[in-house]
Amino acid sequence: MSKKVNLKEKLSLFNDHWSPKIVADFNGHDVMVVKVKGEFVWHSHEDTDDFFLVLKGQLKIELPDGPVFLGPGELFIVPKGVEHRPVAEEEVHLMLIEPAGTPNTGDATTAVTKDYL
Amino acid sequence: MSKKVNLKEKLSLFNDHWSPKIVADFNGHDVMVVKVKGEFVWHSHEDTDDFFLVLKGQLKIELPDGPVFLGPGELFIVPKGVEHRPVAEEEVHLMLIEPAGTPNTGDATTAVTKDYL
Repeated sequence: MSKKVNLKEKLSLFNDHWSPKIVADFNGHDVMVVKVKGEFVWHSHEDTDDFFLVLKGQLKIELPDGPVFLGPGELFIVPKGVEHRPVAEEEVHLMLIEPAGTPNTGDATTAVTKDYL
Repeated sequence: MSKKVNLKEKLSLFNDHWSPKIVADFNGHDVMVVKVKGEFVWHSHEDTDDFFLVLKGQLKIELPDGPVFLGPGELFIVPKGVEHRPVAEEEVHLMLIEPAGTPNTGDATTAVTKDYL
């Protein structure tokens, strides 16, 4: 049986940035928490939408049509194939959902390994 | 392009209980918000895990091995096929994720229609 996940507690267990940690499995997807700060790379995922839920801080997601700005309790789905770049001036805490094995940069050669917390 | 979703704002738009509202689409899944109060029915979903994230209040999910208790910022995945019954003594606000078309009771003949907000 799965266990409950306290997102804030999970986020207290690490401090590195742009390195998603898996906290639960859902229908072949990884549910993850991550801390981000600074600018990520422009990338896209050809085979999956990209789920962002802000838990703390202010996140900008740059998109071809202009940026969206997300605060706590706000979510955004980047449709599959759409180029995007997350940017966080100050540290932001996020919950992410992607199919298990999805490279965070959209490219397996540059992606970080996602570990279970 | 999809739009950002403010979960609290979406939850302010309705007051009925046990009637999930779709706020976003993600990889063939509905992302929903719902207000619940009281006891739901025991049910299971044969083909999908069931994603619960508590946004406000205290939720009990009764399970064959005993209940789990969830507060704000806590999530729980009910594995597919596992009987469960959500119970909320006071009103609880949730974010749910299920494959599009999943009946909320596990049975299409008793399920509510999920509308877009």
